[in-house]
Amino acid sequence: MSFPVTLEDVNEAHERIAKHIHRTPVFTCETIDNIVQRNVFFKAENLQKTGSFKPRGALNSILKLKEENSNVAGVVTHSSGNHGMAVAWAARKAGIPCTVVVARGTPEVKIQAIKGYGADLVICEPSPTSRVETCDLIAKEKGYFIVHSYDSYNTIAGQGTMAVEFLEEVPELDAILVAISGGGMTAGVAVAAKAIKPNIKIFAVEAYGKELEPCLKANTRLWRNPPQFIDTIAEGIRIQQVGHKTFPIVCELVEKQVFTVTDDEMVEAMKFTWQRMKLMIEASSAAGVHAVMSEQMRQLDPSLKNIGVILCGGNVDVNNLPW
Amino acid sequence: MSFPVTLEDVNEAHERIAKHIHRTPVFTCETIDNIVQRNVFFKAENLQKTGSFKPRGALNSILKLKEENSNVAGVVTHSSGNHGMAVAWAARKAGIPCTVVVARGTPEVKIQAIKGYGADLVICEPSPTSRVETCDLIAKEKGYFIVHSYDSYNTIAGQGTMAVEFLEEVPELDAILVAISGGGMTAGVAVAAKAIKPNIKIFAVEAYGKELEPCLKANTRLWRNPPQFIDTIAEGIRIQQVGHKTFPIVCELVEKQVFTVTDDEMVEAMKFTWQRMKLMIEASSAAGVHAVMSEQMRQLDPSLKNIGVILCGGNVDVNNLPW
Repeated sequence: MSFPVTLEDVNEAHERIAKHIHRTPVFTCETIDNIVQRNVFFKAENLQKTGSFKPRGALNSILKLKEENSNVAGVVTHSSGNHGMAVAWAARKAGIPCTVVVARGTPEVKIQAIKGYGADLVICEPSPTSRVETCDLIAKEKGYFIVHSYDSYNTIAGQGTMAVEFLEEVPELDAILVAISGGGMTAGVAVAAKAIKPNIKIFAVEAYGKELEPCLKANTRLWRNPPQFIDTIAEGIRIQQVGHKTFPIVCELVEKQVFTVTDDEMVEAMKFTWQRMKLMIEASSAAGVHAVMSEQMRQLDPSLKNIGVILCGGNVDVNNLPW
Repeated sequence: MSFPVTLEDVNEAHERIAKHIHRTPVFTCETIDNIVQRNVFFKAENLQKTGSFKPRGALNSILKLKEENSNVAGVVTHSSGNHGMAVAWAARKAGIPCTVVVARGTPEVKIQAIKGYGADLVICEPSPTSRVETCDLIAKEKGYFIVHSYDSYNTIAGQGTMAVEFLEEVPELDAILVAISGGGMTAGVAVAAKAIKPNIKIFAVEAYGKELEPCLKANTRLWRNPPQFIDTIAEGIRIQQVGHKTFPIVCELVEKQVFTVTDDEMVEAMKFTWQRMKLMIEASSAAGVHAVMSEQMRQLDPSLKNIGVILCGGNVDVNNLPW
């Protein structure tokens, strides 16, 4: 099956953005390898510009927009925070005005960062519907382009670049664990990794309440509408429904077996990673760390020896910890 | 002036330990460069084995001991925590029994780690004198060798290896900021860096209450006896008096101007580094981060363009934060 986004798009995106973003390091941890009894590799996107993987997709989208239209009035987006920061940062890199819509309740550290990158900020009600409506309104009024946080092929291609780097650095990877929210990162990583190495397995890691596995198994959107946020401490992965552009890709390329992680498990994995690996990660990254150390992982096919985990972000308000 | 420890000793130490330790990465941070208006490079020894730079000196000491005496009964040390972990780790690497003396009040996370490396633990009164006496007693009773945390030329040579790596990675460094406690790291870094690049400046960063600057300027130990701990949250740098072997080296090679950092300033720099650089650092590392961002740094000779900062450790009990 072929999709509207390919490894070629991902490689093009990489050429477009590589000189502006960090090629993030890959870390290993003896303690974790001993516990997991496999070799685990962590791609540290928490060390990426703005503290998450999001600039990859945002910058690819904005630079491509500028290539195609030199008179862009501005860009607007809605985001739980990390994508908002990334768009603000990318717009400034591209020299384009930017408005970011965030839901009430977004951590102060993220709001300050968005403002710090010079974007205008609009606060809306904390529901997926309100965010979309507010964003659409601004786009219409100001003639701004919407930079979607996941449901856009340019965003997906941008996020896929992390898989290209990961497999260049660790070609022996047998599987990659990716935290899933709207599915932009998951789809991008899956498209790129499966094209580079067809036998690699991509596993989605979700916050408890997302209920992705039945949807993947049925190949159908079983979620209730209107779209909901999951009740989780992991703001980065609290969107319940995978996007309409990302879902078919995820269904096709990602393993049907999903890793589900609770808030308590994320807190435990967060503390473990902070203390043992000395890396600041946010709860959505901790979901992947928990998954790789879980009983479910122990039961997986032992021929999957080399497991990659994306540490997708590190934006934490240290004055307001989830424990 | 020549010292009993030279660049040759440091290079020998590096050969001895390099395959067992991490060659730690060097990080930069645009935000900090913009604030400081110089190029700042951070050597991430918080990512070193056991979470601090200490294994460099400990492993060099223990491996050298074993080379010279194949029948070592065991090793013993006293330490506020990081050195204790390092000696425990190094002794296990070398296959030698190990006892670690720690003061009451040492963070639980450090105590657990020392036990985790298989060492015996003895808890003593929280005074420098009690630690030394307890350690001496165990050495005498068991015939163990004492691995000193700073006042030994093998330890100093081991710590110096970080400067060799740092200058290989960033040859353009004009200055290095080093947090100082007993002076093992400072002396080692100074000996190696000044031999490699004679014009480089080494600045000591102290916790408030150490009063190092008058001692350096007078070239004399002006501290009151018996030795005291400084009242600071930074357990890594709470020894007031620089060692008897390290002090002459520090006096000769380190700048007379000292950076003094308070607990509040360390907390602020710690939060900043966690949130912005996504690196877990402990308070003693934060002292260096504060120093490089301080008004005092702004006043320094502008020809010092490229400043190195050692992030010396990252061991933090996340259930017991200093704020």
